[in-house]
Amino acid sequence: AIDIERLMARLERLAQIGALPGGGVKRLALSPEDAEGRALVMRWMRELGLEITTDVIGNCWGIRVGEEDGPPVLMGSHIDTVATGGLYDGSLGVLAGLEVIEALNAAGARTRRPVAVAFFTNEEGARFAPDMMGSGVAQGALPLDEMLEVEGIDGVRLRDALAAIDAAGRAPVGALKPHSYLELHIEQGPVLETEELQIGVVTGVQGISWTEITVTGASAHAGTTPMALRHDAGAVAARISVEAQQIAADHGPPQVATVGRLRVSPDLVNVVPQEAVMTVDLRHTDEATLQKAETRLWRAAQDFARTGGCAITRRTLARFEPVEFDPALVDSVEAAAHARGLGHRRMPSGAGHDAQMFAPNCPSAMIFVPSQDGVSHNIHEYTAPSDIAGGAQVLMDVVCQQAEL
Amino acid sequence: AIDIERLMARLERLAQIGALPGGGVKRLALSPEDAEGRALVMRWMRELGLEITTDVIGNCWGIRVGEEDGPPVLMGSHIDTVATGGLYDGSLGVLAGLEVIEALNAAGARTRRPVAVAFFTNEEGARFAPDMMGSGVAQGALPLDEMLEVEGIDGVRLRDALAAIDAAGRAPVGALKPHSYLELHIEQGPVLETEELQIGVVTGVQGISWTEITVTGASAHAGTTPMALRHDAGAVAARISVEAQQIAADHGPPQVATVGRLRVSPDLVNVVPQEAVMTVDLRHTDEATLQKAETRLWRAAQDFARTGGCAITRRTLARFEPVEFDPALVDSVEAAAHARGLGHRRMPSGAGHDAQMFAPNCPSAMIFVPSQDGVSHNIHEYTAPSDIAGGAQVLMDVVCQQAEL
Ligand SMILES: NC(=O)NCCC(=O)O
Ligand SMILES: NC(=O)NCCC(=O)O
Repeated sequence: AIDIERLMARLERLAQIGALPGGGVKRLALSPEDAEGRALVMRWMRELGLEITTDVIGNCWGIRVGEEDGPPVLMGSHIDTVATGGLYDGSLGVLAGLEVIEALNAAGARTRRPVAVAFFTNEEGARFAPDMMGSGVAQGALPLDEMLEVEGIDGVRLRDALAAIDAAGRAPVGALKPHSYLELHIEQGPVLETEELQIGVVTGVQGISWTEITVTGASAHAGTTPMALRHDAGAVAARISVEAQQIAADHGPPQVATVGRLRVSPDLVNVVPQEAVMTVDLRHTDEATLQKAETRLWRAAQDFARTGGCAITRRTLARFEPVEFDPALVDSVEAAAHARGLGHRRMPSGAGHDAQMFAPNCPSAMIFVPSQDGVSHNIHEYTAPSDIAGGAQVLMDVVCQQAEL
Repeated sequence: AIDIERLMARLERLAQIGALPGGGVKRLALSPEDAEGRALVMRWMRELGLEITTDVIGNCWGIRVGEEDGPPVLMGSHIDTVATGGLYDGSLGVLAGLEVIEALNAAGARTRRPVAVAFFTNEEGARFAPDMMGSGVAQGALPLDEMLEVEGIDGVRLRDALAAIDAAGRAPVGALKPHSYLELHIEQGPVLETEELQIGVVTGVQGISWTEITVTGASAHAGTTPMALRHDAGAVAARISVEAQQIAADHGPPQVATVGRLRVSPDLVNVVPQEAVMTVDLRHTDEATLQKAETRLWRAAQDFARTGGCAITRRTLARFEPVEFDPALVDSVEAAAHARGLGHRRMPSGAGHDAQMFAPNCPSAMIFVPSQDGVSHNIHEYTAPSDIAGGAQVLMDVVCQQAEL
């Protein structure tokens, strides 16, 4: 059985790395803090007797041998965070995996299949787009060569960021072929808390579309340039942002739309902006509706640019279709929650997860635990230890089943 | 008479300081480039035999003695630029002043009143708000103590920026009391070019209102947070920006509205912005209409914040009422343009100018020359040498009149 104290202690220890003054954590992918986090988790893996492998993009997994050789039952998630992150997003799935291993070790348990735990590089996509990059590369959804050239928000290329903290190993793409994949994660939304449930039985992940839009106008004097003669890139960007909100309103839930990044230049009070660079994050569980949102947004954006006398270009930063998890494995998660007497419901995931990269290649599923106030990507992210214990126990139960304890 | 070659040579020489790779100039107020520019202009002042005074906020003027003591006829402008500035904005007025002095020297002319030329600190307001800061302080419109504490866009306080380049002198506020003030400047707008005129006889300056608005929401996950539960500071800012455009459209010319600065944080693709900081620059020749624009914008901004679940605050960065120049001096400018056979018209200024700070205290007026394509605050700012010659000649003619040659 899960030892919740041990798991909480690891969560708190890892959260010290990149801790923010006001609470929360900043451990951007392949930053010095990420390097320190990786070293700590690898030390724990070694202490638990796991055999560690690291691949070319810095994904790292530790295997506990089974009675038989063959593909492991894999538990995984990530330890990178956004710039204003909490303690649980990602870290929970990895450290609960270690706790499952430690519980198995403590019980001297022998599983038929190997059991493994992994953390994947740059799941958040906060520094390098797209998100789920490490798992995406490992599972063949994203081309390694292209990813190595991606430039981070700080202008550093992924290739150089990997080298800077010596994160890459020798294992090639395709080295990680699990028997099945399970990921425990905080919900990061309000559903479980609102319905007073302990476990989310995740049925799939909604489609994700990230687009960077660049509007190019002309800088001009704010006092002397008549409105009709302006090429105001910032004004065009503002209209695109409002349109994104309107699309979400018109489509209704589960459509979401977010303009997370927006920069204007030269960014001076009395100069009409000559350039605006923004990102639009659109998500929906239905691929056709997501495409509709993308099309409408881009048409409107082009219109606004035309009427605003600006040029406009776009670049896809991430595009993942909606994913359905393995029905049998989802059933197993549900049954385990039920058996433990934990209130549960089926639900899609609003966030992207490494699990979605494994789904096309092996039976995959996820377990959600509640997020207080539905808050995540925020320093106030919080999940009660009792909820964490429930989720980790369900993870352990399903892993034992899959690994044939 | 004006020697246009000499004037152009000085313009080009000064433009080398802070020259941008693609053309244009970046010589932000009190930057190292500004320091170099100041040193060069002061050297030229000395070479022309002027007696130099610098005041506590770094305004600098050089006086050519007259037959009688007493307040000088002052020509002035500024040598700071915006971050993407051109060669003429400000520098023209200062260097044309030097050319007038040099022409007087060359002719061995003796004027009854002293004649002086000045450059004022931080006219642009691009690094420190408000704009026209140096002339505003010198003429008692802005309090020195408050201005010294103003923080620049780079976080440096004006007091420290002055010290960093040793720009401040000993002359106190109020030391500069001219007999009359004249400023030659590029129009920075399209009117003269469109009407194929050489001289703008400036009747006054429109009112300027700069407000910084801060919207505070809550960062949240872009995938999991339903639209209804968001506190999206960026979305609120976008609506405010669109409203500013709408106000300008509804009021019609000469109303202008510009959102020049806009920053969201944490500025990540999959995080709902928790804060947005923006500036709104509103201008109108009519004070009542300008107030109407301010009131409507702030009401709407508060509404958007309320419906968007965000807090909102504002801070005035600059507020100057419309200014009328001295009718007799304006007549003199018009008469001089006419006498030189230069096509001219009366017009208000869309941009703020140091002249407006002198207007309440002494007869003041301005002379505009055409801006190609009406472009300014842009590296492609351009005025033909023949137009510059015309403007400088009119400046000289009026100065000789005022100084009683
Ligand atoms: N789980 C999670 O926060 N993933 C980051 C990718 C995203 O959904 O934006
Ligand atoms: N002339 C000029 O560009 N002044 C800067 C102040 C402003 O009008 O924004």
